[in-house]
Amino acid sequence: MTQQFPNGGESRLERGQRALAKIDGSAGHNVIAALADIAPDFATYIFEFPFGDIYSREGLGLREREIATIAALAAMGNAQPQLKVHIDAGLNVGLSREEIVEILMQMAVYAGFPAALNGLFAAKEVFRQRDALDA
Amino acid sequence: MTQQFPNGGESRLERGQRALAKIDGSAGHNVIAALADIAPDFATYIFEFPFGDIYSREGLGLREREIATIAALAAMGNAQPQLKVHIDAGLNVGLSREEIVEILMQMAVYAGFPAALNGLFAAKEVFRQRDALDA
Amino acid sequence: MTQQFPNGGESRLERGQRALAKIDGSAGHNVIAALADIAPDFATYIFEFPFGDIYSREGLGLREREIATIAALAAMGNAQPQLKVHIDAGLNVGLSREEIVEILMQMAVYAGFPAALNGLFAAKEVFRQRDALDA
Amino acid sequence: MTQQFPNGGESRLERGQRALAKIDGSAGHNVIAALADIAPDFATYIFEFPFGDIYSREGLGLREREIATIAALAAMGNAQPQLKVHIDAGLNVGLSREEIVEILMQMAVYAGFPAALNGLFAAKEVFRQRDALDA
Amino acid sequence: MTQQFPNGGESRLERGQRALAKIDGSAGHNVIAALADIAPDFATYIFEFPFGDIYSREGLGLREREIATIAALAAMGNAQPQLKVHIDAGLNVGLSREEIVEILMQMAVYAGFPAALNGLFAAKEVFRQRDALDA
Amino acid sequence: MTQQFPNGGESRLERGQRALAKIDGSAGHNVIAALADIAPDFATYIFEFPFGDIYSREGLGLREREIATIAALAAMGNAQPQLKVHIDAGLNVGLSREEIVEILMQMAVYAGFPAALNGLFAAKEVFRQRDALDA
Repeated sequence: MTQQFPNGGESRLERGQRALAKIDGSAGHNVIAALADIAPDFATYIFEFPFGDIYSREGLGLREREIATIAALAAMGNAQPQLKVHIDAGLNVGLSREEIVEILMQMAVYAGFPAALNGLFAAKEVFRQRDALDA
Repeated sequence: MTQQFPNGGESRLERGQRALAKIDGSAGHNVIAALADIAPDFATYIFEFPFGDIYSREGLGLREREIATIAALAAMGNAQPQLKVHIDAGLNVGLSREEIVEILMQMAVYAGFPAALNGLFAAKEVFRQRDALDA
Repeated sequence: MTQQFPNGGESRLERGQRALAKIDGSAGHNVIAALADIAPDFATYIFEFPFGDIYSREGLGLREREIATIAALAAMGNAQPQLKVHIDAGLNVGLSREEIVEILMQMAVYAGFPAALNGLFAAKEVFRQRDALDA
Repeated sequence: MTQQFPNGGESRLERGQRALAKIDGSAGHNVIAALADIAPDFATYIFEFPFGDIYSREGLGLREREIATIAALAAMGNAQPQLKVHIDAGLNVGLSREEIVEILMQMAVYAGFPAALNGLFAAKEVFRQRDALDA
Repeated sequence: MTQQFPNGGESRLERGQRALAKIDGSAGHNVIAALADIAPDFATYIFEFPFGDIYSREGLGLREREIATIAALAAMGNAQPQLKVHIDAGLNVGLSREEIVEILMQMAVYAGFPAALNGLFAAKEVFRQRDALDA
Repeated sequence: MTQQFPNGGESRLERGQRALAKIDGSAGHNVIAALADIAPDFATYIFEFPFGDIYSREGLGLREREIATIAALAAMGNAQPQLKVHIDAGLNVGLSREEIVEILMQMAVYAGFPAALNGLFAAKEVFRQRDALDA
C-alpha cells in the first residue's frame, strides 16, 4: 500500500486540506466554512490532525478508513451530521452503496437495531441527494 | 464477491455455528459455553442472527466486516471483552496487526483519545496472548 | 404466563409480522415501508429477530417488555424516533400514560435529568398525536 | 396501586433510607458506607432523591421500576457495579431469575449483543452469589 | 468561597427556583413550563435536586459548575437542547464566549471531533440568539 | 491570562511533552511508555494534539481545563483509567479534593447517579494513592 497523501514538502495543514477536499468534498468544505466566525483554529485542527495526520497515514487504505468511520459514527448514534458526511465520503473513496448498507445493517449486532435504522435512514438521504445532483 | 458461507441446505443455526467457529475461534466458543447455564437460547440467537444472518451475507467481505466491528466496539468503549474477541477475529480473517492498530488510532478522531488508547491496550493484550500461544 | 404469539406452524417472519403489527401498529409499518428501497432485508430481520424471536418469547409479558424498551431508549438518548414508537407501543400493550411518565422520570436517576427531560418531551408529543387522532 | 413507602411524617431522608434498605439490601448499604470518607453528602442525596423521591412514588410498582432500571443500566453498559446491585434488587422485589434474563436478552435488540452479553454475565455472577449465600 | 444561595429559611424548592432563575434565565423557565401538563412533579424535582441541592452547594463556584456541565453535555452529545441552555447559562454566570469555545474544542480530545463540532455549532446558535436580543 | 506553555521556538512535540509532564506527571509518562511497542506514533500524537495544541492554548486556564476533562470523562463513564489520570492531573494543577468531589457529584444531574458514584470511587482511589506516596 502506498501512502495516500505523500508529503512532498507540504505542511500538515496543506496535506490535510488536500486530504479533506478529496475525501469529504464539498461537505467538508461547508463544515470548515461554518467554523470561520466561531472557532477558526478548530478548522485548522481538523485539517491537521484527522486529515493531515491520521487519514494521510500509510497502513490502511481510505476505503478501509471510511468503513471504520461509518461504523463508529452509526454505532455511537449521536453525530448524525458527521455520519452523513462520511457516508458521502465513503462513496467518494470507492465504497459501493451496497457495502455501506451492509456496514450499517451490521451495526444492529453491536449497537442495536435503532442505531442501524437511523444509520440506514441517513444513508437513504445521502443517496437521494447524490441522485438529485446527478439528475 | 462470493458468499462467505454458502447455504447448501444448512439451517441458520448450522451456518452461524460454522461462521462463528471460523471468525471468532475458541473465544467465540467460550462465550457460548458461558451462556449454557444462564441463557442457552441466547447462545442460539448469537449463532443465528449475527453469524447465521449478518456475517454470512454477501455484499461485504469478512475482513471489511471486522474493520467495522472493531471500530464500533472501540468507539463505544463499553464492551472491552467483545472488542478483544473481535481484534482476535480480525487477525483470523486476514487483517494485519498494523491495520488493526491503524483502525484503533483513527478512533481518537471520532470517539476521543481515551477510547483509542483503551482499544490499543486491548490490542496489545490480544497480540501478546497470540504470541504466547505461538511460542 | 402464556406465550404472546404461539407459533402454530408460522415462520419466524410471519410470527414477527403479527407481533410487530400488534405492538407497534402503524408506526412499525411506516419503518418497514421506509426500508423498502434501501435495505429490504433489514425489514425482514426486524420482523424475525426482535419481533419473531424476542417479543414472542414466553417468560416476560409485553407490558414488561415495553417498560424495559422505553427505559433503555430514554437512557441511551440517541434514538428519539424509536423512543416515540415504543412509547406508543407501550400504550398499545396496556401501559398507562402515568406509568410511562413514571418510567421516564426515573431515568433521571440512571441517565441524568436531560435524558429524562427529552424522554418526557417525546412522550408529550406521542400523547398529543394520539389525542389528535381520537378527537 | 398503593404507595410503596407511605410517608407518615417521615423526612425524605428517612423514607429513602427505608426504601433503599428494602430494595437494595446490603449492597445498597455497602455503597453508602463507601461514600462516608469521601462524599457523605452524596450518600444523603442517594437516600433522598432516587429512593426518598422516585422509588417512593405511587404510579409504578417496585417490580416495574426495577425492570426499567435493569434495562437502562444494561443498555448503557458503563455501570456494571450498579447493574449487579439492581439485578439483586430486582430479585428482592419479586422479579424471577427468568424474567431478569428475558430483560437482558431483549437489550440485544436496543443496545447490541455485547450489552446483552455483559448484562447476562453480570446476572450470572449475582445468581451465583445468592446461591452461595443460600447454601 | 461563599455559598451561592445561602438558605435563610428557604425550602429546597424556593432556593432551587431562585438558583434556576439566576443561572438558566428564561430558558430554564421554558423547560419548567413545558412540563406543566405532562409531569409537573418533575419540574419540582428539577428545582429541588439540581438547583436547590447541587448548584446551591458551597465548594465550587457557579462559573466552574457551568464549565463542568458544558463539557459533560458536549461530550455525551445526546442532549443538544440542554447543552444550549447551559452554554447560555455559562454566559449568565460569567464565562466568556472565548472560554466556552475553548471548553468545546477541548472535547475533541475526550469525545471526538464530531462531539466538539456539534458543541461549537450549538454555541454559534446561542451566541447568535443573544446578539439578536441585544440588537 | 498568559499562555501556559509559551512556544519559544519549540516544536509541537516538545511543547506537548513539557505540558504532559507538568499536567499528568508520572501517570502520563506511564501511558506513553505503554504505547512504545504497539503504537509509538500514537504517543507522538498525544504529545502533539491534546497537549501541544489544546492544553497549551491561551483562553482557558489549566485548572478550568481539568474541570472540563474530569466532568466529561465521569459523564461518559467508559474511560476509568483516564478519569483517574485526570483527577490526579486536576490536583497537580491546583484543584482541591473538595472541588473534584463537587464536580463528580454534579455529574449525577447530567449523567446519572451511577456515573457520579463511579467517578467518586475513582477519586477515592486516587486520593488514597497520593496519601500513600506522602506517607
